[in-house]
Amino acid sequence: MSIADTNENTQPLATHRRGGGRVGRRIMRSAAVPSFPTLVRKIPAYEIVPDEAVELIHEASLSILEEVGCEFRDDEAIAMWKQAGADVTGTRVRIDRGLLMELVCKTPSEFTLNARNPERTVKVGGKNSIFVPMYGAPYVRDLENNRRYGSLEDLQNFHKLAYMAPALHSSSSIICEPMEIPVPKRHLHIIHSALKHSDKPFMGIVTSKDRAEDTMAMAGIVFGEEFVRDNPVLVSITNCNSPLVWDATMLDAMKVYARHNQPLILAPFALCGASTSASSVGAVAQVNAEALAGVAFTQLIRPGSPQIYGQFMVTVDMKTGAPMGGTPEAAQMMYLMGALARKYRLPWRTSGFHVGSKLNDAQAGYEANMLMHAAILSGANYIWHSAGWLEAGLSCGYSKFATDCEQLVGWYKYAGGVPFDDFKEAMAAVREVGPAGHFLGTQHTLEHFESAFFMPTIMDFNSFEQWNAEGAKDHDTRGREKARTMLRDYEEPKLDDGVAEALHDFIAKREKSLPDTVN
Amino acid sequence: MSIADTNENTQPLATHRRGGGRVGRRIMRSAAVPSFPTLVRKIPAYEIVPDEAVELIHEASLSILEEVGCEFRDDEAIAMWKQAGADVTGTRVRIDRGLLMELVCKTPSEFTLNARNPERTVKVGGKNSIFVPMYGAPYVRDLENNRRYGSLEDLQNFHKLAYMAPALHSSSSIICEPMEIPVPKRHLHIIHSALKHSDKPFMGIVTSKDRAEDTMAMAGIVFGEEFVRDNPVLVSITNCNSPLVWDATMLDAMKVYARHNQPLILAPFALCGASTSASSVGAVAQVNAEALAGVAFTQLIRPGSPQIYGQFMVTVDMKTGAPMGGTPEAAQMMYLMGALARKYRLPWRTSGFHVGSKLNDAQAGYEANMLMHAAILSGANYIWHSAGWLEAGLSCGYSKFATDCEQLVGWYKYAGGVPFDDFKEAMAAVREVGPAGHFLGTQHTLEHFESAFFMPTIMDFNSFEQWNAEGAKDHDTRGREKARTMLRDYEEPKLDDGVAEALHDFIAKREKSLPDTVN
Repeated sequence: MSIADTNENTQPLATHRRGGGRVGRRIMRSAAVPSFPTLVRKIPAYEIVPDEAVELIHEASLSILEEVGCEFRDDEAIAMWKQAGADVTGTRVRIDRGLLMELVCKTPSEFTLNARNPERTVKVGGKNSIFVPMYGAPYVRDLENNRRYGSLEDLQNFHKLAYMAPALHSSSSIICEPMEIPVPKRHLHIIHSALKHSDKPFMGIVTSKDRAEDTMAMAGIVFGEEFVRDNPVLVSITNCNSPLVWDATMLDAMKVYARHNQPLILAPFALCGASTSASSVGAVAQVNAEALAGVAFTQLIRPGSPQIYGQFMVTVDMKTGAPMGGTPEAAQMMYLMGALARKYRLPWRTSGFHVGSKLNDAQAGYEANMLMHAAILSGANYIWHSAGWLEAGLSCGYSKFATDCEQLVGWYKYAGGVPFDDFKEAMAAVREVGPAGHFLGTQHTLEHFESAFFMPTIMDFNSFEQWNAEGAKDHDTRGREKARTMLRDYEEPKLDDGVAEALHDFIAKREKSLPDTVN
Repeated sequence: MSIADTNENTQPLATHRRGGGRVGRRIMRSAAVPSFPTLVRKIPAYEIVPDEAVELIHEASLSILEEVGCEFRDDEAIAMWKQAGADVTGTRVRIDRGLLMELVCKTPSEFTLNARNPERTVKVGGKNSIFVPMYGAPYVRDLENNRRYGSLEDLQNFHKLAYMAPALHSSSSIICEPMEIPVPKRHLHIIHSALKHSDKPFMGIVTSKDRAEDTMAMAGIVFGEEFVRDNPVLVSITNCNSPLVWDATMLDAMKVYARHNQPLILAPFALCGASTSASSVGAVAQVNAEALAGVAFTQLIRPGSPQIYGQFMVTVDMKTGAPMGGTPEAAQMMYLMGALARKYRLPWRTSGFHVGSKLNDAQAGYEANMLMHAAILSGANYIWHSAGWLEAGLSCGYSKFATDCEQLVGWYKYAGGVPFDDFKEAMAAVREVGPAGHFLGTQHTLEHFESAFFMPTIMDFNSFEQWNAEGAKDHDTRGREKARTMLRDYEEPKLDDGVAEALHDFIAKREKSLPDTVN
């Protein structure tokens, strides 16, 4: 990194406040709601251990895949592995290091993820990172601070909030489950809401082959069938069942998406101490083996298809077995996974603001920022669960969502590097003011204050007396108020009428052929 | 760092739970309450900018001191600077870079800070870091969650809590102000409480020469007058008035303490954008100049005396002018100051868990962990304001104090490095368990689970239903309960009777000669 280029992507931030700056003005002209471009990281990655330690883990992972192997519970997958020359016994696949790395190396180190609004198109990999909201909560903590099942209205609200948040680069998809819709039909409404209420990239459905194909069909309606045959427009998550099992459901989804060149996240969901050994380094070696086996398999499906190496690693509470957020080990493991991802030149995913807390309270804050700090410094590319996450993912909170969205603006700025561009003027200001003066009235301050420092608004820095007079509200309350304001100000980035109609027709047709219950 | 030595100081953590581990047992035998030794950092410092950027800031700071200079508002100080060959006009001292660096270089890169219990003695500097609770709050947020003036009872409680917290290495001194005691006599009771209720290192009083001398006299009663003439037993804070003024009060305290070889923190209290330019790098260059001028002056008083280079840099809220915690710029500035400190080989101070929040709520958590993460990764040695801080330092919270103390255990573990010592056994466990198994019953898990992962107890990871059944308490409530439990379990580490009596006599004598009001 040279000093000269440390400030390039801090510019768009000005748009968050009043649309200042050149990049800012360009964005404001072309879209009603400001949105930051891909985060291009201008700070170095933090290497918590020396290279030889990373090599040690790498070698251990390769030995696991050679000696223990990994289960692939799908006939077609097994046939593909045999064809590729792996050592296959039943569903157990032992992959030698030569074959493994040959396949992994076919994966591109970065890719473009297209949005329906081309100005929201982003890059993932290398120095390019994006923030993505949470996924998969059955419950919400709502605008009245009640916990209840999620509904389609909630899901739509979260897609609206994702659209309104300048530092979110994706609308995810199943931010919360629309529980009132029958499971077999649910995916249609989830994808429809994501495509309708936001123009950012989104995420696919992976719970069956048919649902993955429906997702692709709906993406085809919006982007053009031809386009989505080869161009990434959505990202899907496939979890390895730790330890060392890729199951049929995941492999089915993988095949649909990889054949369409749509990136998958190959991410073991590891509960460290339960589904891995009780060792941070041991857990990383295992998860690395699992993720690499997944990445390698995608390259059997479609060589050169873009993929995201990944991890979700949390330690579990000794008393309850529940996943914890924000522990030091989770941060350390993130740094190790980042170092491995860089070694393999793979785009990689981690999670940012995920917590065990039930509420948007102090626990949530301590947990969330522990992990986001590590996500940023470990150089992650796909920073998932960056808004809304509560209760180990069981619940999505409106207040938490709004809080996280605001905090992301700060993290975007942080990762954008230390700005040296006005250093000479700042030094001239010191000479101008001299000892015992103050800087508030200087020309430099007037010109730079607003862009120099992050100013969160949900956080409160009023005097105690003023804060008290305004109702002594805690952060959770202010976060819910902010979410209401964002929803009030929301304007839909409308789809073309023809596209909107075609989506409705597709959903109506598919709903007729789908049952109301899972048999 | 070699892999082999990454795990040395994670051992004492076991003592927090049940006194396991070799170091743990040694500690448990010799003291009723476990206390971690000096944190010896086994993780590298994060360098956010390349060396040439650090050089650029360094050169700018030196130019400020040569060309603009710094005010030293004290006749004796001015005489000393003249004698040393600085360019002096009135109270303005311009220091050329040769003289400045010659003086700075006399400062030791690390020192021993003695506690009245020798097992609590710590090292500061180089790889050695300590956590120190907050300082200076006029208000407390109490055990009933009310905000009110601090009292002597509160101060005593906080000293007790500091003693009970294994990861705190100091008892600070004025954690909160005992507001009912007249200002001229207050310092006697503050120092007495710190010495009586805890056996950890503490902090000195700096508000006047007499009070600094009283502090040294009281330290002399406990440690021996001879001993405190040369051996560090307390640390004191001297703030530069940014921009570029060292005032008479601070210089008076500096002279008392440095002559006794007691380390000072030379730390501008910078409100960035108000008392510095509106530029993170500009602020760092100025604060570095101010801190270096302070360090250099201490070496005129007593060459070779231990000192702590430092910073307290926060950005200010644009609306209110109030200091903010947890902003990205505050973290970036910490990394820059850390890089400068390493260049000068000076022990250095920053602040950990400081926040603008009024409550121990989500704002507090997000703010606190942003800064502690940076404090740890920037390699700070004296990590101050590591417990209790609320409301930009105006208030100390019981719940916040307990929360921070618990979180410090995790940070201690984090900075202690990634443990590789049981990696082979962990890999053997993967072979033993194989695909689709689980690790909970393995020998490795049984032996390592407890020491492998940080298990906070104020944080709640119960199921929603269990949490709800237990009263649906937020983190703030649980923090207050934890503080109550700690106070209930407290046992005083008693001073020898003779020493206790001598302290009482000294206080009684001094109180007679001091007025009840400041004239």
